[in-house]
Amino acid sequence: MPFEPDETTMMDLATGVRPPGAALTAELAAELHARAAWSCISEPGDGTAGLVVRALGAVPALRLVIEAWSPDRVARELLAAGVEQGTVVAAGLDRALERWRPRLDPVVVMISLRQAARSGARLAIPGDHDWPAGLEDLGVHAPLALWWRGPADALGAFRESIALVGARAATRYGEHIAMEASAGLVDRGFAIISGAAYGIDGMAHKAALASSGRTVAFLAGGVDRPYPSGHVDLLERIAGEGAVISELPCGAAPTKWRFLQRNRLIAATSLATIVLEAGWRSGSLNTAGHAAALGRPLGAVPGPVTSPASAGCHRLIREYDAVCVTTAAEMAELVAEHLVQVPLDFPESDTETERGIAGGGRTSEQVRVFDALSGRSPREVGDLARRAGLSTMSVRAALGALGLEGAARERATGWVRNA
Amino acid sequence: MPFEPDETTMMDLATGVRPPGAALTAELAAELHARAAWSCISEPGDGTAGLVVRALGAVPALRLVIEAWSPDRVARELLAAGVEQGTVVAAGLDRALERWRPRLDPVVVMISLRQAARSGARLAIPGDHDWPAGLEDLGVHAPLALWWRGPADALGAFRESIALVGARAATRYGEHIAMEASAGLVDRGFAIISGAAYGIDGMAHKAALASSGRTVAFLAGGVDRPYPSGHVDLLERIAGEGAVISELPCGAAPTKWRFLQRNRLIAATSLATIVLEAGWRSGSLNTAGHAAALGRPLGAVPGPVTSPASAGCHRLIREYDAVCVTTAAEMAELVAEHLVQVPLDFPESDTETERGIAGGGRTSEQVRVFDALSGRSPREVGDLARRAGLSTMSVRAALGALGLEGAARERATGWVRNA
Repeated sequence: MPFEPDETTMMDLATGVRPPGAALTAELAAELHARAAWSCISEPGDGTAGLVVRALGAVPALRLVIEAWSPDRVARELLAAGVEQGTVVAAGLDRALERWRPRLDPVVVMISLRQAARSGARLAIPGDHDWPAGLEDLGVHAPLALWWRGPADALGAFRESIALVGARAATRYGEHIAMEASAGLVDRGFAIISGAAYGIDGMAHKAALASSGRTVAFLAGGVDRPYPSGHVDLLERIAGEGAVISELPCGAAPTKWRFLQRNRLIAATSLATIVLEAGWRSGSLNTAGHAAALGRPLGAVPGPVTSPASAGCHRLIREYDAVCVTTAAEMAELVAEHLVQVPLDFPESDTETERGIAGGGRTSEQVRVFDALSGRSPREVGDLARRAGLSTMSVRAALGALGLEGAARERATGWVRNA
Repeated sequence: MPFEPDETTMMDLATGVRPPGAALTAELAAELHARAAWSCISEPGDGTAGLVVRALGAVPALRLVIEAWSPDRVARELLAAGVEQGTVVAAGLDRALERWRPRLDPVVVMISLRQAARSGARLAIPGDHDWPAGLEDLGVHAPLALWWRGPADALGAFRESIALVGARAATRYGEHIAMEASAGLVDRGFAIISGAAYGIDGMAHKAALASSGRTVAFLAGGVDRPYPSGHVDLLERIAGEGAVISELPCGAAPTKWRFLQRNRLIAATSLATIVLEAGWRSGSLNTAGHAAALGRPLGAVPGPVTSPASAGCHRLIREYDAVCVTTAAEMAELVAEHLVQVPLDFPESDTETERGIAGGGRTSEQVRVFDALSGRSPREVGDLARRAGLSTMSVRAALGALGLEGAARERATGWVRNA
């Protein structure tokens, strides 16, 4: 059986995984088939696969695997395509070819494409108008294709999205804040990205759906294999109103590695990542690490220091410069701030800051005069000056301000404090 | 009645407020009397009083108030003593003299000294071997004297001390972490500084005493007036094993202003300030503001975002660059980090070279703004503009560039130079 199907079969397979009505050329069909094949033969995040596909194109790159080119020949091809010598040497072509070759199985690719079409999964590839722009930042580690289920316009959600992630072993506190955060961000027009896990992830998706918001779940296995099993119904609802996405082909099982790589997609497709509750070694810290590495805003919600379930969040704030966020408004602000990025407009003066921190809009002299006032006995200006340790002129000025504010009033025999 | 008592009375009064066995000269007795008088006639933090006393000495400075010198004559005296013209003009001498004069009452000073001796209070003044070194950073706003109760060596506690502060309206969570923090820091050899208020302050003192640690309470009124009244016994225990301190003379009542100024002493005498629990407008944020302004390490303990009692702590972490601290070990680390962090004298040539290289690429405006920055005291844009002789717009632009370069950073109360 040849690896590449004939053109008619290719068109047929490709049509099955494109949104209905999408125009399809033979060239695009071949591209889709090649990328589907790449998603079968390379593991997520394979930088050498990314390099080869980027330099030579998905179809020619697939051919060199099929034709079992030698590492030297591939290297020459890459150099000819303009890849730098150092990059080619560092790419580890011999080992890469060794790991791709055994996976090369035309049946597997066709089955995954047919299974995708059967389960309503689509195939998105770079260049599609709604291909998530943020993935570009992953460079050669960007996914070669994305399998997804959802309404035709589902991938548009990424333009305004925030990732809410956290531990499976969430506390009631964590679930509560996940719910509040998700609903609050949906109210502000954001789509909620998460990983469909139990605990925080699940609560974030559920609250988004309950608020009639858009939500996207990234899976570590095929989109036809709902995982975890307790979230079958939830994933069905997400696919109905948002999107369920994976870079693994249909039928693929989730593995530890794929979970870790899945996390990079959550971070890369979101404008910001917020960790809501996480233990000291929670997997969600990995997502946070990807966000930080990509230079995306990273927020963490604090919790009781007595709760091990918040230790990871505090660690992110302490050691990884995550912003301490406590409300949906502050989470949204994180994105707004990031869009401006290098705010060169500093607060006008420190008096404002100091005033803010001291609490109360009064000057120090007004505070002192207010202290010196009695609520019952009227006091004259000289008396107040002595008590406050201020000049009579300062006292008069302060009394004027306090009077305007309604905090003090003048009687026949002096000034009193208003109750 | 003359303002200054005769030498015998002065020696007598001074002896009463010095630790037993302390050697006393007539000169020191006069100094003690003058500073006691200053603590009666000026309110805490009176920068003009600080300036005059610093420039002329406490005794001559008191004489000019007694003899009702004109502002012009005082100004001439200050200029002769080497104070800069601009500083003299900005000092507001006319208003200062006006506010000191009505407070000048020899009877009040003598009564406060006698009352101090009766209640076992001592008078510490700058130059005493255990005068808290950190107070120097307050400049002209440093206290002119401190009244204190406690064992003879009590003031030595400041050499290794951490301030634990927080809201009066503490939750059980807040009290729990205050207890843990205080006991844990005592175990690590730190003295605990606080303000003796209900809630967090009280718990911090109590836990320190329970762990046989040293603890110091700063009051906003006289040390003979235990405040709050519910803490009479606690303050008695603190005075027995640690120290109860105030810059107000015996008999003075606490006022709002004095509480705010008391907070600067807590921040200045501690190596670091930690806010354990604080509402959005808690007074403890004022102490935090002082610590930040002084360039001291500032920590805040997070809590549930659902608890308004932790909102102030989260605000400090978010907006004022407080370090998120969750254990006593992390609080102690804050001090350790700070001790290595602020070495302003780099004798090594590498640093010089690097500086030279870094300096080479700067515009003249950037060089001038960098010169105007301090390594320790944050300076606001307006202040920097004045020092550098540039417009605020130019200063902002230069700060932006220096910030990107990593040569300067913004703190809550202004900009500092990076070491």
